[in-house]
Amino acid sequence: MRDRDLTIGIDIGGTKIAGGLVDSSGLLVDCVRRETPGHAIGAVENAIVSVVAELGRRARARSYGDAVAVGIGAAGWVSTDRSTVLFSPHLAWRNTPLRAELAERMSLPVWVDNDANAAAWAEYRFGAARGHETAACVTLGTGIGGGVISAGRLQRGAFGVAGEWGHSRVVPDGRRCVCGNRGCWEQYASGRALARAGRELIDVAPAAAEALLATVDGDGSRLTGADVTAAALAGDPAAIGLVQEVGTWLGEGIVTIAMIIDPSIVVVGGGVGALGDLLLEPARARFLAVLPGRGYRPAAEIVEATLGADAGMIGAAELARSKLG
Amino acid sequence: MRDRDLTIGIDIGGTKIAGGLVDSSGLLVDCVRRETPGHAIGAVENAIVSVVAELGRRARARSYGDAVAVGIGAAGWVSTDRSTVLFSPHLAWRNTPLRAELAERMSLPVWVDNDANAAAWAEYRFGAARGHETAACVTLGTGIGGGVISAGRLQRGAFGVAGEWGHSRVVPDGRRCVCGNRGCWEQYASGRALARAGRELIDVAPAAAEALLATVDGDGSRLTGADVTAAALAGDPAAIGLVQEVGTWLGEGIVTIAMIIDPSIVVVGGGVGALGDLLLEPARARFLAVLPGRGYRPAAEIVEATLGADAGMIGAAELARSKLG
Repeated sequence: MRDRDLTIGIDIGGTKIAGGLVDSSGLLVDCVRRETPGHAIGAVENAIVSVVAELGRRARARSYGDAVAVGIGAAGWVSTDRSTVLFSPHLAWRNTPLRAELAERMSLPVWVDNDANAAAWAEYRFGAARGHETAACVTLGTGIGGGVISAGRLQRGAFGVAGEWGHSRVVPDGRRCVCGNRGCWEQYASGRALARAGRELIDVAPAAAEALLATVDGDGSRLTGADVTAAALAGDPAAIGLVQEVGTWLGEGIVTIAMIIDPSIVVVGGGVGALGDLLLEPARARFLAVLPGRGYRPAAEIVEATLGADAGMIGAAELARSKLG
Repeated sequence: MRDRDLTIGIDIGGTKIAGGLVDSSGLLVDCVRRETPGHAIGAVENAIVSVVAELGRRARARSYGDAVAVGIGAAGWVSTDRSTVLFSPHLAWRNTPLRAELAERMSLPVWVDNDANAAAWAEYRFGAARGHETAACVTLGTGIGGGVISAGRLQRGAFGVAGEWGHSRVVPDGRRCVCGNRGCWEQYASGRALARAGRELIDVAPAAAEALLATVDGDGSRLTGADVTAAALAGDPAAIGLVQEVGTWLGEGIVTIAMIIDPSIVVVGGGVGALGDLLLEPARARFLAVLPGRGYRPAAEIVEATLGADAGMIGAAELARSKLG
């Protein structure tokens, strides 16, 4: 394998760091995962450097040759020059020159992108959106992230925050959001929304929520989106009902995205996206019911992401590769 | 002047056809305006051919030389190959191969675009959005149209309907819209919304609406958005209050556009856009109040279009020029 076939992609979320060695066909050759070591900038940077070093050692041990660049997919807003994290809701980055700080500590070129942009790029290059020159990728985790491909290019926008639609408003004076506003999409269609709906059901209708209550030993306040997701996948009718509610709101927001960028495909990824058709069928139904001009315009497909939790790493690695001569 | 400096742009709305002779600097050299002759496809095509012929005669009489291409900006959804009008809310086009039908009757290359896309392109090339590689243009007329520039390119989307955000939903279960849905943005921020608010004010608070009532000889049912616009520009406090309401909703919808495409500028044009700061100040106030992450991200400017009613012609002519070898 030629040296320059390999780049490293790092996906940094609020709770974990995943690093992968990726070849030019998008194949994840090796992978290292760690807990995010607190929120301090220095500790996170140390962890990134250590993950890159470990991937390098293992690659050399297997005679893969050295990686030639590092791409970072960071849970935050990243400047258009792919150097600075402007803001992160989950980590301490505030106008942090992450690229320069990391490049100084590693003898490799480094590029920084938004994590959901990296995942979108991976799905476009190697996953569910391949062949779609205009695509939207919606990442459903605790909140909602996203990335936009138009004319075959990742669109970062004027300030690096294109596709950050989790806080687009779907309900005026709706539910209070972590961002300070009310009625944001991610309060209705995300892991957090699933957990909220589950806790509400437990509170109001504990008999209907018996299976959900059992997963948290009777303590409804501990219920997470992942708990509801697992119960729905296991067939619990109450959990499936909650997923349908959230899926309907997912479709509602996708209509707005479709009207603005007109994609031929919308790829839904992230942990909640793993619910597949349980989530996507109600989303499609809502989307087709309210898309204006239906009958006179083709409708975008709404599909599940194919790269799963690896999309961020693969996309970050590929975005770093695209900067090589 | 060299022959190939001139192209013709035609702007076709529900009520009028405007044709202009445009040079490569975006200058409108000559212009012809007609009423739209009913909604029948044949009559509209005859009118286009006649406008092009008249512009040609006048150009020859003034020794300008012949135009070398015709661009059509049509109030409807246009296929990505710029040939077919998929659907028009105001005219009879339904999958109409407008480009082929017109090219057969004129000895000039013809290209078809959406009218709001044409206006957006004109504002980007020669108007308020010049120098902004990512821009949104919102056209406020009876309804809302729009166009998206990303990475310096007009983004038509996968099916030709990018930027058609008039029917994005801002209020679940909100006002019934002509598209059949409820709560569409154009029911809250358009000429139609201004007229509706004015008629409501007349109905509920006729004393407050005295000046508005006078403009329609006491018959509130005749009040149009243009009447409210004129009264506001003349300083009527009641009309100004209505414009502020509509401006606030304008800002609300612009936030969603900003989160999805992240423009550095939002240009507001169309007949209602001519209200200028009366409309844009409340829009900016709302935009800045609810933009998530304010303080950590630059905010897009919201400005008035500079090409006014000529934008559609100039943009259609320039888009046709861009297809010349």
